Amino acid sequence: MSSDNRGVAYIRQNVVEVQGIPFPTLADPRGRRIEHGVILKVITTNICGSDQHMVRGRTTAPAGLILGHEITGEVLELGRDVESLKKGDIVSVPFNVACGRCRSCKEQHTGVCLTVNPARAGGAYGYVDMGGWIGGQAEYVTVPYADFNLLKFPDRAQAMEKIRDLTCLSDILPTGYHGAVSAGVGPGSTVYVAGAGPVGLAAAASAQLLGAAVIIVGDVNAKRLEHARQVGFQTVNLSLDATLAEQIAQILGTPEVDCAVDAVGFEARGHGHEGAQHEAPATVLNSLMEVTRAAGKIGIPGLYVTDDPGAEDSAAKRGALSIRLGLGWAKSHSFFTGQTPVMKYNRALMQAILWDRIAIAKTVGVQVISLDDAPQGYAEFDAGVAKKFVIDPHGVVVGAG
Amino acid sequence: MSSDNRGVAYIRQNVVEVQGIPFPTLADPRGRRIEHGVILKVITTNICGSDQHMVRGRTTAPAGLILGHEITGEVLELGRDVESLKKGDIVSVPFNVACGRCRSCKEQHTGVCLTVNPARAGGAYGYVDMGGWIGGQAEYVTVPYADFNLLKFPDRAQAMEKIRDLTCLSDILPTGYHGAVSAGVGPGSTVYVAGAGPVGLAAAASAQLLGAAVIIVGDVNAKRLEHARQVGFQTVNLSLDATLAEQIAQILGTPEVDCAVDAVGFEARGHGHEGAQHEAPATVLNSLMEVTRAAGKIGIPGLYVTDDPGAEDSAAKRGALSIRLGLGWAKSHSFFTGQTPVMKYNRALMQAILWDRIAIAKTVGVQVISLDDAPQGYAEFDAGVAKKFVIDPHGVVVGAG
Amino acid sequence: MSSDNRGVAYIRQNVVEVQGIPFPTLADPRGRRIEHGVILKVITTNICGSDQHMVRGRTTAPAGLILGHEITGEVLELGRDVESLKKGDIVSVPFNVACGRCRSCKEQHTGVCLTVNPARAGGAYGYVDMGGWIGGQAEYVTVPYADFNLLKFPDRAQAMEKIRDLTCLSDILPTGYHGAVSAGVGPGSTVYVAGAGPVGLAAAASAQLLGAAVIIVGDVNAKRLEHARQVGFQTVNLSLDATLAEQIAQILGTPEVDCAVDAVGFEARGHGHEGAQHEAPATVLNSLMEVTRAAGKIGIPGLYVTDDPGAEDSAAKRGALSIRLGLGWAKSHSFFTGQTPVMKYNRALMQAILWDRIAIAKTVGVQVISLDDAPQGYAEFDAGVAKKFVIDPHGVVVGAG
Amino acid sequence: MSSDNRGVAYIRQNVVEVQGIPFPTLADPRGRRIEHGVILKVITTNICGSDQHMVRGRTTAPAGLILGHEITGEVLELGRDVESLKKGDIVSVPFNVACGRCRSCKEQHTGVCLTVNPARAGGAYGYVDMGGWIGGQAEYVTVPYADFNLLKFPDRAQAMEKIRDLTCLSDILPTGYHGAVSAGVGPGSTVYVAGAGPVGLAAAASAQLLGAAVIIVGDVNAKRLEHARQVGFQTVNLSLDATLAEQIAQILGTPEVDCAVDAVGFEARGHGHEGAQHEAPATVLNSLMEVTRAAGKIGIPGLYVTDDPGAEDSAAKRGALSIRLGLGWAKSHSFFTGQTPVMKYNRALMQAILWDRIAIAKTVGVQVISLDDAPQGYAEFDAGVAKKFVIDPHGVVVGAG
Repeated sequence: MSSDNRGVAYIRQNVVEVQGIPFPTLADPRGRRIEHGVILKVITTNICGSDQHMVRGRTTAPAGLILGHEITGEVLELGRDVESLKKGDIVSVPFNVACGRCRSCKEQHTGVCLTVNPARAGGAYGYVDMGGWIGGQAEYVTVPYADFNLLKFPDRAQAMEKIRDLTCLSDILPTGYHGAVSAGVGPGSTVYVAGAGPVGLAAAASAQLLGAAVIIVGDVNAKRLEHARQVGFQTVNLSLDATLAEQIAQILGTPEVDCAVDAVGFEARGHGHEGAQHEAPATVLNSLMEVTRAAGKIGIPGLYVTDDPGAEDSAAKRGALSIRLGLGWAKSHSFFTGQTPVMKYNRALMQAILWDRIAIAKTVGVQVISLDDAPQGYAEFDAGVAKKFVIDPHGVVVGAG
Repeated sequence: MSSDNRGVAYIRQNVVEVQGIPFPTLADPRGRRIEHGVILKVITTNICGSDQHMVRGRTTAPAGLILGHEITGEVLELGRDVESLKKGDIVSVPFNVACGRCRSCKEQHTGVCLTVNPARAGGAYGYVDMGGWIGGQAEYVTVPYADFNLLKFPDRAQAMEKIRDLTCLSDILPTGYHGAVSAGVGPGSTVYVAGAGPVGLAAAASAQLLGAAVIIVGDVNAKRLEHARQVGFQTVNLSLDATLAEQIAQILGTPEVDCAVDAVGFEARGHGHEGAQHEAPATVLNSLMEVTRAAGKIGIPGLYVTDDPGAEDSAAKRGALSIRLGLGWAKSHSFFTGQTPVMKYNRALMQAILWDRIAIAKTVGVQVISLDDAPQGYAEFDAGVAKKFVIDPHGVVVGAG
Repeated sequence: MSSDNRGVAYIRQNVVEVQGIPFPTLADPRGRRIEHGVILKVITTNICGSDQHMVRGRTTAPAGLILGHEITGEVLELGRDVESLKKGDIVSVPFNVACGRCRSCKEQHTGVCLTVNPARAGGAYGYVDMGGWIGGQAEYVTVPYADFNLLKFPDRAQAMEKIRDLTCLSDILPTGYHGAVSAGVGPGSTVYVAGAGPVGLAAAASAQLLGAAVIIVGDVNAKRLEHARQVGFQTVNLSLDATLAEQIAQILGTPEVDCAVDAVGFEARGHGHEGAQHEAPATVLNSLMEVTRAAGKIGIPGLYVTDDPGAEDSAAKRGALSIRLGLGWAKSHSFFTGQTPVMKYNRALMQAILWDRIAIAKTVGVQVISLDDAPQGYAEFDAGVAKKFVIDPHGVVVGAG
Repeated sequence: MSSDNRGVAYIRQNVVEVQGIPFPTLADPRGRRIEHGVILKVITTNICGSDQHMVRGRTTAPAGLILGHEITGEVLELGRDVESLKKGDIVSVPFNVACGRCRSCKEQHTGVCLTVNPARAGGAYGYVDMGGWIGGQAEYVTVPYADFNLLKFPDRAQAMEKIRDLTCLSDILPTGYHGAVSAGVGPGSTVYVAGAGPVGLAAAASAQLLGAAVIIVGDVNAKRLEHARQVGFQTVNLSLDATLAEQIAQILGTPEVDCAVDAVGFEARGHGHEGAQHEAPATVLNSLMEVTRAAGKIGIPGLYVTDDPGAEDSAAKRGALSIRLGLGWAKSHSFFTGQTPVMKYNRALMQAILWDRIAIAKTVGVQVISLDDAPQGYAEFDAGVAKKFVIDPHGVVVGAG
């Protein structure tokens, strides 16, 4: 195999490695020429919690799959149909692969594009069952429908200066933001975010940007909670025996919040000292219904899967969870799920970064690493450090580390 | 007990009877004087599917509870603080008891009023756990916060002429409409409504009013499906072995609809020849996720309960259902639950009735009966006839029957 | 000049003629090759009221401009980058030319695409100042960004059978619908539509589809009002001396409506017997503020221009009108202007046509004519007949006339 | 006249004075007993720019009218029907008088309540043509429909500590916020606010809270612009000869903003060195259409009147302005007018204040004065100082001044 390019490959459960891989071409996963695409030199590409689902063996990802769907890059080569970009442009790539031409895309639902994945609605780079698009944890990567998909940064020098923040626009910041927006967060809201990992922190930072009055982040991981406090949020420790509602009441004077975000998803652990030892996939949603006020909304950016071969019971293996829907119904809750349509939000969030309204890199704990250190990054992230690893494959991020 | 008034009382499982009961007073369930209330002479009061939940013994309703939350009446006596009404006005009573002064009511969420029920958000007439307000399947009934709660019909003669339709404004029509609206139904939509009972038919009629292109109603009850076809809807029979998706594809040419409404709730039966024999409370929701297109919305006006002592398994007894949330998540579905805030919709729907845009009485099969026939009406409705029973306690509906 | 193609050309004030013109090429107005485009054989192409603005000499349209922005056609030739279409597909062309790649298009504002018109936001076919795209009142026409712009009808035979209705999807029906939607029309609304021309009737038909309780159409043209009544709407005659408010009160019992649509635009005439004799460009808007209820919305699909060389006074010449904004402000009105983003609505409206929910051709009075009869159609339309002229350049509409 | 109470009376053009007035009673302007009302001891009551319209003689306000619609107070006496309040509660009074029982109020349009003002939709305290409710620039004042209208602060001590900020909840902060919200301001927006007076600054502060990327405030008053810069906003000076678009382009690199707010209203002055010398009531709106991007929204909290006896020309005298609507139409603008429905926003904004998310007192330059200093406050405010005067009639604001 050519080694004109190098990328992070999934090998087997808990094993990823950096491999030589082919230089990208302007072709789609079925080998068809795509004149609407570009080839990017990757500037930064982040390790995501959803990558961990694959690496932990919770999916049917095949050996050799090149990982990476959080990509920021420089335009290196353009297909004939590309009109709005030129070589050297610095761009953010939404993790959703989207065609811009189907009903979903025209209605701003780029997370469920109908054409880029023959198997189901929605495509992504470097992800099992998402259409076979090659991942971007690599030196170079192809992006289709480039005019539609790419967000160009207005100024190259400014982009490089703020690259630690801007790299969060490909997934994590819009995803946290989508959770907050769909939970109805606005000025004056009280907000609970389940999960102090990067998506939870991005949801909390988004809630802050949206004007929330008070933002409470919950987790069982003490280090992550410590980090969450350091970057300005209230916290609740779900491994304690005080219930979530009791801990919220201590902060707010009432056991309910206006808005709730599930930034955990299907690999949730139980609450309380005992519960935190094992998985309990419906725990988060059931607890959110308990602590969200009547008529409140629950945003669910955390991933739930249709099939989970690694689940602890047979229902969870086919994606079925024991949800106390009657509780939510009694409180007139509404629930918002699914992959974030990044394009709906990334331009506005870019503006918020460029005008210093949000310091997302600091909030999520960005740490820049080399491509060769990616396997180490995966391991540390899996161990629960309060960091967001950003791979810098060409060593161009000044003062990386 | 005085017999200045007569009402339908729940006695025990499967038994209701008409009893002499006290004439109503301007007092709330805790006996406090309510000058904001009125006493109504009941013109019509309907039997609701959710009354059946109590009568079937699926709740903790106490013996002697006076039933009835679907009330249309004439103002007979007014508290001193009532401003906008006068004796003789004909009014529709939203089934939600609401104060008009709390945060929920001010935000149009009258289904979860914070003050009329000390136990939880949301009140209703004649219903277990909903605040103790006396039911309206009676000759006379008290309505609190009358200026806020009551919808006055503009003309008395016109109101009596269209009373079979207008009686549907207290619950069933707004509830079906809420399901359709929260499912995102609009001009051109393809819609699937689970359940061919009165709420399902009201949802279907609402979808028609909202401009839907095609409306498909599903049930396991052949008589109700026959009625649904007669009033103009497409149907699918869920007791057949062809799947729901297959039957939808036969109608639409595609196995998915734009919008879905769950008008069944927690007493759902399984699908297919075998499944239809026993309860399967998550069946409806799981099937809706299967047949709703990516980015679609699912409206859930069907009742789900926090506790179901009559459920077949221990999870369902505490309101927990085995939901394939991963399927919904993969399709970016959103879900809308809870009691309908009737006041948000009833004025507009009254206009639609008065200007002959919707023939809801015909669609749901209104049959007017006397108060004494109420127990018989309960029995027939429980047996699954394609009728909506409307009690006429004073025999004032012309050409009743 | 080649005569491989024939089209309707604007010659000078009140003169159009059918000319031989070049066969279209896959090129944009600046001569650049567009592989994203297609060439259509035009099946139907309608004469629009806004074409009349040019023909009446109210614009700076140059002699020789090929008219026509309401186009339905058959795909004849495809650029290399077109993916979702094939030869023989029957498609509706939104009158907006849009790229699908700019911020406006991504946000569903295709009426103000930022790239297809160097002079300002928004492009259209065959229209002055809208980017120079050649019009479609011709045998053949080029459509750029075909994957994005075109709406494919699902079945060719069904499309040809309903072509009189489907031809209205390119402009008039979505434009009327946009007016109704932005005016807040929904089930139970009372609606006033100013203007009984085709756009006004399309707005009225849309209001009907949206569930409006009662729809009132106003005009000074008695023939058009007669037609409006025949197709089912209430009417008010603005050339009478009874005021608009008085006439509305006669119908509704109150002088105000919930929602109002301005389907007239800048060439408005005054109201009353005297007023109707001359132009009074602010008349419609000022009267709508008078008759719209507090907190109501006013949809303004009627065209207002930045410059009007033919106006009666110097303010109107630069697009300034004497608007009683204080009246609207006192009633908390909101106002919605601009070219309709057809793509936001055409798919849903196509479904409504295909499932027989709207009979738009009958409502607007479609009359099919030959290309050679186009000048005669322009003249009759200008004279105010109650018809919508649809040109059938290849004589393929069965039973035309 | 009794002097159990003292209030600020409008005497004649440019003259107000503090007078002895009757102690309030639980009665409405027509003398009817209102058991739903309360009497408040006024804690703070602000001088508003719209009071100036009266004092400048631009309205038909009668001599002796007691001014003041921005009221914060302590509950002193309660009508029989009041349920949710008790003596000693500290409350904010929305400037809108609203009944909570009419269609407008039920739909959250409390700015156009249909019952509290016999003359037209919408009531207010102390304002000409707004229903005759006695103003609150006094020691004591009556508030009707108290359960509905009043916003109770959760903690008395906390309320008094933050009273300079909380006093802005009765009008100015919600009004600025309404302007920003209706202009579509959200995270990342670029915003232009016309007017650096208190409402403009409140709109700017609201835009900040809503996450705007950059906020530009424009005025002709150099002192107010200096203050705007000191509290963190960008500014443009409209008395310079550089156009508004040019000055915006210098800040943003583009001459257009995403969102625009008119916080000036009908007493606007012209732009440029010459223009700033005289009134030009359509100047602001016309300039906002010029600098707002295509598909943008324009929020208009600035007051426009139906009649302006003091206007410079006859059209303006009847509230008609020469608006370049064609320009807005070409850019698909929408426009949002009217009195702010304070109740829709005040609870959320209270939370934002209590949790230190907004420092509105500092932003608008709150200066606390005594009741006796009110006439001096009016004079200074009219002269254009960068202050918001807050009257403290009982001398209870600690560290006033």
